[in-house]
Order: sequence, then C-alpha cells, then structure tokens
Amino acid sequence: MKPLEGLRILDLTRIVSGPTCCFYLAAMGAEVIRVEGPEGDITWRVPPFVGPDGAHPGPRGPKDIALSPLRRGRGKRNVVIDLKSDEGRAVFEQLVAKSDALVENFRPGVMKQLGLDYEVLEAINPRLVYCSITGYGHDGPYRDRPSMDLVVQAVSGIMSKTGFPDGPPTKVGVTVGDQVPGIFAALGLVSALRQRDVEGRGQLVDVAMLDALIALMWDEPIDHYEDVGLPERAGNGDPRGSPIGTYPTSDGWIALVTVGEAVWQRMGELIGRPDLLERADDAVRRAELSREIDAAVADWTRTRTSDEVVAALTEIGMAAGHVRPAGHARSDPQVQHRGALERLRHPESDEPSKYWGPALPIRMSRADLRPAPAETLGQSTDAILRDVLDLGDEEIDRLRKLGAVGTR
Amino acid sequence: MKPLEGLRILDLTRIVSGPTCCFYLAAMGAEVIRVEGPEGDITWRVPPFVGPDGAHPGPRGPKDIALSPLRRGRGKRNVVIDLKSDEGRAVFEQLVAKSDALVENFRPGVMKQLGLDYEVLEAINPRLVYCSITGYGHDGPYRDRPSMDLVVQAVSGIMSKTGFPDGPPTKVGVTVGDQVPGIFAALGLVSALRQRDVEGRGQLVDVAMLDALIALMWDEPIDHYEDVGLPERAGNGDPRGSPIGTYPTSDGWIALVTVGEAVWQRMGELIGRPDLLERADDAVRRAELSREIDAAVADWTRTRTSDEVVAALTEIGMAAGHVRPAGHARSDPQVQHRGALERLRHPESDEPSKYWGPALPIRMSRADLRPAPAETLGQSTDAILRDVLDLGDEEIDRLRKLGAVGTR
Repeated sequence: MKPLEGLRILDLTRIVSGPTCCFYLAAMGAEVIRVEGPEGDITWRVPPFVGPDGAHPGPRGPKDIALSPLRRGRGKRNVVIDLKSDEGRAVFEQLVAKSDALVENFRPGVMKQLGLDYEVLEAINPRLVYCSITGYGHDGPYRDRPSMDLVVQAVSGIMSKTGFPDGPPTKVGVTVGDQVPGIFAALGLVSALRQRDVEGRGQLVDVAMLDALIALMWDEPIDHYEDVGLPERAGNGDPRGSPIGTYPTSDGWIALVTVGEAVWQRMGELIGRPDLLERADDAVRRAELSREIDAAVADWTRTRTSDEVVAALTEIGMAAGHVRPAGHARSDPQVQHRGALERLRHPESDEPSKYWGPALPIRMSRADLRPAPAETLGQSTDAILRDVLDLGDEEIDRLRKLGAVGTR
Repeated sequence: MKPLEGLRILDLTRIVSGPTCCFYLAAMGAEVIRVEGPEGDITWRVPPFVGPDGAHPGPRGPKDIALSPLRRGRGKRNVVIDLKSDEGRAVFEQLVAKSDALVENFRPGVMKQLGLDYEVLEAINPRLVYCSITGYGHDGPYRDRPSMDLVVQAVSGIMSKTGFPDGPPTKVGVTVGDQVPGIFAALGLVSALRQRDVEGRGQLVDVAMLDALIALMWDEPIDHYEDVGLPERAGNGDPRGSPIGTYPTSDGWIALVTVGEAVWQRMGELIGRPDLLERADDAVRRAELSREIDAAVADWTRTRTSDEVVAALTEIGMAAGHVRPAGHARSDPQVQHRGALERLRHPESDEPSKYWGPALPIRMSRADLRPAPAETLGQSTDAILRDVLDLGDEEIDRLRKLGAVGTR
C-alpha cells in the first residue's frame, strides 16, 4: 500500500506550484486526475518534447509530451475537459462529487468566473477539500496582483538577504517562490483530509506564495539581526561565526561550516596554524578574527584539490563539501545511491529518455514512492469517464463531438 | 477542531529542520511533546532571551526563553528527560508506547547508540511513525558526513545556480537546506499516519536535506539548459525572456516578469517605446533583444519612484513588486492583513515581546491554525508524566531526584 492510496484528487493547476504539489501527492499514491483544457497548460508547448521514440525539439503529434508535463505529470492520469462549456462543466461537477480533494492555482476570482468556486463545489460535495495556491492569498490589498516567483521573492525580502554585502539583492536560483508554497499546500491538503475523515466535512485550504516565503525568511530573527547591526546579506559566510563559507581550491570551490570548538581545534592543527587557536579560543573571538582566519583557511585550501580538502575536513568532523556545478547531481554517488534523480520515461517506451527529474524527496520503509510515467494530453479521458463516472461509449462520443471532453 | 487534533508526536529535534517541521504539526493541532535533555538544545543558549518581563541580552533564570525556542517551540509542550539515563530512557519508552509519531534529526546512528532506533521503538509501538531528517539519508557513501545548510546547498548545485554569471556561486540567503526538508518531513509524516490509520502499522520516514534540495533544483530541466547552452546562473533575469529581472528606480529597485504578449504590448506603450514592439514581436525576439529592452525599461524606471513604477505596471497586468529590504515585511500591508507574521509572546506574559515570528503559511476555512506560545524548558514535565503516563507525585519526585527527568 502507498500512504495516500484510495484518495482521488483533481489537479486543475498550471505552470509550477500546483503541478509540483500534485506530483508529491501522486507519488505518495493518491489517484491524481489532471484536468486540462483542450490545448493543455502552456507548458505543453515549451520545447523540448519526448515521444515514444525519444527526444526532439518540436512536437510531431499527440503522443509527444513536453519536458515540463513529462516531469511534473508523473504519477497522474490526464483528462481533457473544456470547463468553459456547459457540458464540460457538468462532467467536471460529476467528478467533484466523486473526489476527495481539488487543487487549483488560478488567480483569486477565476474559479468563480467559471462557476466552480469553493462555495459551488462544497454544495456538490461537502466532504471536498479545496486547495488554492495564489500569489498573495484570497484577501488583502495585493489579492488581485499578478505574481511570479521572482516578484514574490523580491516583495518577501528574500532577495535582499541573498548575495554579497557589496552587491545587489539577488534572486534565489531555484523557484522557491513556486515550489515551497506547493509543498505547504500538499501538507495542508493531506492534513485537512485527516480533519475531514474525523469530522466528515472538507474545507478551503488557502496557501499564498508570499506567506510561504515570509515563513522561510522569518525562521531567522531578522528583527534581532537589525538590532545588533548585522548586514542584510552576508554572501556565503555568516558574521556570527568563523570559519564558515566558501573557499577556493586548486580546482574549484569548497564550502565548510565549523560546528563546535573541538572541530575548530582540529582545524587549526590541520592547516598548520596552532597560533590562531590560542588567539581565537571561542566562537565570539573567532567571529572577531574572521578575516584573518578566512585568509589562513584559503591559503591552505588553495594549494589542494577539492577532493583532498573535503576528505581531510570530513576526517576531522567538519561539515564540508564541494561547491558542485548545477548539472553535477546526475553523477554524484550519493544522489545515485539514493535515487534522488531518475530518468524520465515516455509512457509508451520501455527506455528512459535522456532527461532527468527529481524523485519525491521522502523515503518510507513500507511504501514504494516511485511514480509511474506521465501521460499524454487526454490519455485517460475515456477511461476516467467510463470508470469513475460510469458513462457509456455513446455518451463519451457525444461529449467529444460537442468539444466538452477531448482525447489524444 | 484542528486538522491534526488527537495525534501525539514526540519531538526529539534540534536546531532548524526538525523544530520547524514539528512547529507546522503543532500549529495544525497535533499534541507535540518536545523532549529535551537537562540543558536543552544548544539554541536555548543563544541570545537574546525573553522573560515574562520582556527581552534582555542574557538569561537570568529558568523562565527565560531564547529567541529560537520562543519561535520554533510555539504550540509545543516541553519536557526534560535524560535519555542517557536508564530511568529516563524507560520513561521515554512509555511515552513512545502512547504516541502516534516521533521526529528526530540526529545523524544516522545516534538514536541506535541511545538504544532508541526505529527497530527498538517499533517493537514497543508497531503503530509508531518514525520520521528522521538527516543531511544525506540513512544509506549511501555520504551517510555519516556532518551536514549543514550551506554545505548541502553547495553539494546540491543550488549555489552554482544562484548569483550572477560574472560572479561566484552564491548561498541562498534563507536556510532552504534546513527548512525545505522540514516541510517534506511534515508532509511524509502526516501521509504515513494516514497509511497507519488504514493498515494499522507505522513505518520509518527518511528525509534527507540533499534529496530535498535536489528536488528544488531539478524541477527545472538543468540537463536541457546545458544542451542549449544557457548559463548556470543568470543573476536576477532569465535568458529565455525579456523584460524580466530587477530594475533601478529613483528610490530603490523593483522586480518584474513579463507574462504573455499582451502585457508586453502595453508595456512598450507605457514606457514610450512603440518602436521596440515592432522589432520584438514575440518571446524569442524579445529574448534576442533583451539588452536593448532592459536598457529601455531601466531608462523609464530610473526616473520614477518604486511606488509609481509598481502601480503603473500592476495597472497594465504586469507581475511587478518592490525589492523589499529584509526587515520590511513587518510593515507590509499584505503581510499585516494576512497575519503572516506575529509578535512572539512569553507564555507567562499577556503582552507580546518585541520579536516577530512567521505564522504557519497555510490558512483553512474551518480551523484556526494560530499556535499557543512556546513553553519554558521542562515546563510540562510534571503534567505530561502525570496526564499521559499516569505517574504519581512520588514517582515523579523520585525520577527528578535521579536526574532522569527535569523541570524548571
């Protein structure tokens, strides 16, 4: 069994935050039905594409899947329903009646325009958990503003905390503004389903990108840092300790963090600077002497390879590692051992494609959380209408001819 | 009711990842019992402190709470048990027998040294969900390496994706290496509890910091970006589109993202450059002309205040916002409206302290997810031993005299 087996979740999401949220739920065994319009989410049109015969730069037919849905669609069934048509909306409402949860990441108001906001769907299925991911939430002065990862990073203050003191505010190079609210949304949804199981009623789960980034930011006491005069951003180091940061080696960079006095004592001996140990004999003094300590550490690292430095530091109990290039992980022995990345596979091919995607970063001892490959656009339209809604072939044909549902 | 009401979770965690994970669970209504040694986690000794009478730089008595436990301890009961003593371990095992889940973030092997690894606890309580957060996971070549946020950021490749093309790999200024695995751990734990409710058995949930950051990284196709020659890091912009990035104003910086052709058409008119609209009439051409477009946008933004620029861009449907200082959020009208930050309060004071902490970034329509204040070290030792384990006053006194349990 998988943890979320037996739960049916409708995925009306687009782009990043919602599709990743529903990917986590699918990997944990929920029956996720991705509902898309006839053209599919915009990400279906961004190259490259993968077909049954491998990767190519442009789409050639209905069996081609763009890289984003190939990755974020893993574990999901794919159904095409035109929610702007009356017949399509009626089909969708029947699915809502037979589902446990729904996730959408439209701007506030869009679901209401479609006649499918929480109040409407709650009347159809009071047990439904309705999860919405938006930029700023369903209320407040910024409610109707368009939002994107970069903008919410800027407004949250995260950019002002990233980068070097003598450089500009800097974007976090991964889409934390999308993905982190996606994880919180999955957590809120599964938790609200537990409340539903106990109480018998669903509810609206409202996750905002800005709220999620504020939570990331303010886990540290930004207000106290202001009081004691710490800089907004401190590059790769931390003014509260030393040595900590990135240091050049003969073939790259390494990162290290000194945790505790004993490790620092061994470090001073390792780099041949016992004199520093006498003068910097506690964390406060080390912070005061950080420029001198950093220079001494760099003198030692610069004449050695990253492999040598990381091995020697790990040996003395220091937290240390290579600063790896962005694409390195595919060949990292720990990533390989854990299966943290997997080759993405087209559903009609036994061979994996050339592209990689992340596994769900949760392992469980009694559940296999590796998802099935993504489906093509509308691959399961007929199967879901037949199996979940008990519609006959004639009715499905009728709906297809009306354009209310679609298949490849 | 709250979503996780009725679940008892033992929190054996330290520093960031585990304490934040258990804070989310506590905010959603789980009975989280934080179990600490007689001295408390190291974070209890980091200034500043908050007592019943307000903030001060050093601790003055057992009622003082350092800022980290004041923030990450919200919603939790606090119990002191010496797990290194036989009597303390016996008390802990009785708690395990009466709990639903446990979270720890020791290095692999530490719980086994204490005689409290999953195999031992599973024998005591087969329904227990045991959640472990580690740097690299419970297996693989890096298993025993010490890990810290900065180091895992480096090894995952995230630093190489953050910063400017002509600058060095850059640390993400918030502790994504700790907090993101903490969110995934909470998601895994709640999901495994659902499987437990269905199947009747708990399991081991194994979340690694490296796996979590690999998931953040590889939600984008890093391998495809290599194929088409995109730079590892792109500063605050994105070479696949334009205009996108941060731009100077007369009093700071703003961030903007162009989503769709219609917004760009309105933007060209707004900044008085209809000539650019003719030459850059689709996304590909805009990317090619990005330097010229960026210069034109900056010419326009530079002569206006950030307020003026964001208002004008929001008006035409552009995703835009101020690049806010790190400490800004406290006074942001949207953050205030949503209650995304709250003043931290000492449990024995009715007045909030001067320090702020983040709310759980999940809102639910039928549950109030605002947590109670944190407790002092060992504040609930007696209450938990009495109420959960049915121990009498004499037995509690005996355990206290042995040093097996502690109270303030």
